[in-house]
Amino acid sequence: MRKQKKVKDSYVIMTELVLPNDTNTLHNLMGGRLLHWMDIVSAIAAQKHSNRIVVTASVDNVSFSESIKLGNVVTLEANVTRAFNSSMEVHIVVNAEDIPSGKRFKSNEAYFTFVAVDQLGNPIDVPESIPETEEEIHHYERALQRRQLRLVLAGRMKLSDAPELMTIFDIKESKE
Amino acid sequence: MRKQKKVKDSYVIMTELVLPNDTNTLHNLMGGRLLHWMDIVSAIAAQKHSNRIVVTASVDNVSFSESIKLGNVVTLEANVTRAFNSSMEVHIVVNAEDIPSGKRFKSNEAYFTFVAVDQLGNPIDVPESIPETEEEIHHYERALQRRQLRLVLAGRMKLSDAPELMTIFDIKESKE
Amino acid sequence: MRKQKKVKDSYVIMTELVLPNDTNTLHNLMGGRLLHWMDIVSAIAAQKHSNRIVVTASVDNVSFSESIKLGNVVTLEANVTRAFNSSMEVHIVVNAEDIPSGKRFKSNEAYFTFVAVDQLGNPIDVPESIPETEEEIHHYERALQRRQLRLVLAGRMKLSDAPELMTIFDIKESKE
Amino acid sequence: MRKQKKVKDSYVIMTELVLPNDTNTLHNLMGGRLLHWMDIVSAIAAQKHSNRIVVTASVDNVSFSESIKLGNVVTLEANVTRAFNSSMEVHIVVNAEDIPSGKRFKSNEAYFTFVAVDQLGNPIDVPESIPETEEEIHHYERALQRRQLRLVLAGRMKLSDAPELMTIFDIKESKE
Amino acid sequence: MRKQKKVKDSYVIMTELVLPNDTNTLHNLMGGRLLHWMDIVSAIAAQKHSNRIVVTASVDNVSFSESIKLGNVVTLEANVTRAFNSSMEVHIVVNAEDIPSGKRFKSNEAYFTFVAVDQLGNPIDVPESIPETEEEIHHYERALQRRQLRLVLAGRMKLSDAPELMTIFDIKESKE
Amino acid sequence: MRKQKKVKDSYVIMTELVLPNDTNTLHNLMGGRLLHWMDIVSAIAAQKHSNRIVVTASVDNVSFSESIKLGNVVTLEANVTRAFNSSMEVHIVVNAEDIPSGKRFKSNEAYFTFVAVDQLGNPIDVPESIPETEEEIHHYERALQRRQLRLVLAGRMKLSDAPELMTIFDIKESKE
Repeated sequence: MRKQKKVKDSYVIMTELVLPNDTNTLHNLMGGRLLHWMDIVSAIAAQKHSNRIVVTASVDNVSFSESIKLGNVVTLEANVTRAFNSSMEVHIVVNAEDIPSGKRFKSNEAYFTFVAVDQLGNPIDVPESIPETEEEIHHYERALQRRQLRLVLAGRMKLSDAPELMTIFDIKESKE
Repeated sequence: MRKQKKVKDSYVIMTELVLPNDTNTLHNLMGGRLLHWMDIVSAIAAQKHSNRIVVTASVDNVSFSESIKLGNVVTLEANVTRAFNSSMEVHIVVNAEDIPSGKRFKSNEAYFTFVAVDQLGNPIDVPESIPETEEEIHHYERALQRRQLRLVLAGRMKLSDAPELMTIFDIKESKE
Repeated sequence: MRKQKKVKDSYVIMTELVLPNDTNTLHNLMGGRLLHWMDIVSAIAAQKHSNRIVVTASVDNVSFSESIKLGNVVTLEANVTRAFNSSMEVHIVVNAEDIPSGKRFKSNEAYFTFVAVDQLGNPIDVPESIPETEEEIHHYERALQRRQLRLVLAGRMKLSDAPELMTIFDIKESKE
Repeated sequence: MRKQKKVKDSYVIMTELVLPNDTNTLHNLMGGRLLHWMDIVSAIAAQKHSNRIVVTASVDNVSFSESIKLGNVVTLEANVTRAFNSSMEVHIVVNAEDIPSGKRFKSNEAYFTFVAVDQLGNPIDVPESIPETEEEIHHYERALQRRQLRLVLAGRMKLSDAPELMTIFDIKESKE
Repeated sequence: MRKQKKVKDSYVIMTELVLPNDTNTLHNLMGGRLLHWMDIVSAIAAQKHSNRIVVTASVDNVSFSESIKLGNVVTLEANVTRAFNSSMEVHIVVNAEDIPSGKRFKSNEAYFTFVAVDQLGNPIDVPESIPETEEEIHHYERALQRRQLRLVLAGRMKLSDAPELMTIFDIKESKE
Repeated sequence: MRKQKKVKDSYVIMTELVLPNDTNTLHNLMGGRLLHWMDIVSAIAAQKHSNRIVVTASVDNVSFSESIKLGNVVTLEANVTRAFNSSMEVHIVVNAEDIPSGKRFKSNEAYFTFVAVDQLGNPIDVPESIPETEEEIHHYERALQRRQLRLVLAGRMKLSDAPELMTIFDIKESKE
């Protein structure tokens, strides 16, 4: 039987201080630097779940809202939401904090997908992921929809073959 | 009347050599490092179109296929596909090359969106973008669909209000 | 009355992946790179306690035991142990993990001291620190001894004027 | 008979220019960055004495006084003070200079200890160190006290078994 | 017969954004950082011509005129001008652009020479280089003079044995 | 009367450890990285002579001989050879050392020229440089020839107007 691992065992927190070279001429953190950090923290979460070397397979749509400033402290929290065969989806939440002013805000969140590989770089199976809390279960269930969206966007699946994906749009509709 | 600028005037080429600190323990380029480069090259393209400071607004789904190795040369080509009011979508194509072996392959492509801002960081209008070649026109036309997808994914638009988006999925269906 | 703040509010976790440029020719993390990370994580803890810019005032004796390898994940946990007038002592615990092998070990711990400063760089008072758990109280109480040791080592206090410091050595004696 | 080497043969000078990424939001050199440089210069001194790869074993109490500014030139001078079996104590003196204003001041000094290792990372004996000048002899003699302090602080020696260490405190007392 | 390769096949464009750590206290790009980029872009050009690992053999006189500012975009264009046995001369042209103001100027140009090496680091023959455009032919022909100048400056050739070199000075004389 | 300063007052030593990111795929130090270090050390020497901010004006022909390896220690020594009005020529000698094997060799030497500038970036006069030792005098005297060579190579002086330069070639001829 396939090995199982709890979602919470993959949980990682990373904290970064925004230094001059991370910023543009307005002294704001550059988006690419944040994506770099998001990739590292989520790769570590995927490593913790699989106990394997992992490689980035894809990044879902990420949007950036409020700007993060030089000297701000950025906290990135990541955990595996759901494991498939050799791939794992990781959810990352990014918060930024201007400590002297006490201002703290959620910067963005994203999903990165990783594939576990062996020493030769070939994909290798990973343990199942067991969600426990309500939030973990929510992310676990929706992982299927996000996966179908990735496949449809990559032209590797038809929308009509992705019933869960259709739901995601319905839900968004009913929300508004 | 709003200023106009040709798509080709925003074209940028960036070349990077993969150094040790860009790689994981398998000596493969880390995904986050590549995203960082993609952000810089596309920010420059958006700057060239707008003659403004720009900030990253969003990154569309990016997938990574073949791994890029230590010592490889990575070429990133970017240009604005379409300008909206203060935002610009940029298309990036990434090629990697192992020069001693002569192996060259397309690594991935992506769309980044930027907002032009003034010195205070407030959004400011940018010139219209004029596509000329067949490929530029193709990217220009589809930009609307991708924009609707971003809005639907962000929960800021209903799928039923996004007719161009529905087409993107149809087209994908008929392709297969 | 002086403002008070709980010790736990200063708690910070930082996670770092050991990259090639962090290592020596044996592919071990260099001590100085680890000290650099320890300084950043503890500065953030001191910032969180004081909501001020902080500058490093001193580092207590740090010893390095087992070597940390390229590709290992290093977790640094820091919190203020005790605030004095404008200075704060921060305790840092460093753990290293070789995720593929599942090996995890405590690398070292240390105390860094910071001074809160205003925009001109002048020292400024910080809130009192309130320890709550048994461990926090233990660190809080011993902070006095460590402070006296710093002063004696810096030649700014006589051993005979440092009764708590004498105790630290007695305790160590009785332990063995 | 054990090989001998003069203290002066381990002497190293390192000069660094303080760049933006080395500084905090007050444009002062961060303490951790300086510790990183101190570790590199002292590792080179220990390498020169031992002609071996060396690993950092410990850092003694370091205190930071005046702040070093962006654009300042930092000069670090290091030499082995005393070799034990496989370990070497290195003394580092740090001076900072604001060249345009001609201001130069001693920033701090510290002792780092290194262990020489073979290609497998196992400790290996190093030559004896021969002090020649009055200052070298002074540092050589006191090295024993500092070593006992490290052992007592690490809980690996009782204060009553460290007679030289007791002297260090007496001497400090009589100084004032 | 020796393999042949067109000059244009070695053509490389590199684009860099000037970040804080690349600048001095006047916020100007440091010359050494630009030389670093020139070395990388020209090494890639030499790699493309030879399909080999290459090592820098020499840099000809480079002069820096107008200063390049923080936030500027630097474009480096390089191509092999002429291949000798195992060495290749590469010509690099550097342009800088302040995009918001639309100011663009030529910063400098230079010649770097590389040697192609095998896996053991031994020199190995490279293909002949075939210039096609008028400009390529001009650079190809003058490469001989520059090579003689390098040899004379290195004390490895007498001026009287360097007829092409004497021409270079005559030409300069007649120009004025 | 113009201020005077001794050549020896500008003397600077910089020591660098070759780290992974400084090397190419053969684990050799990249030429551009060394040029970067040469620029920093010589800029500091020019700063020490002028007590001014300085900008790189030109680099004379530099050739690279033996390769420097990962883990090697590189020592760069620089001093002003001669000051003109607002410009200073700096001589740099680079030595590399593989400490475990005890191998030490001269890697290369070069001349960089700097201009002292005020806060607005305008050239400003510097003190005269006074050579004292035989070697300093030798470098001082030849500085004129090297300066003429730079001007002739830049097309700003005719060879016939550069009598000292003609000598440099004669001297080289008679040497062989």
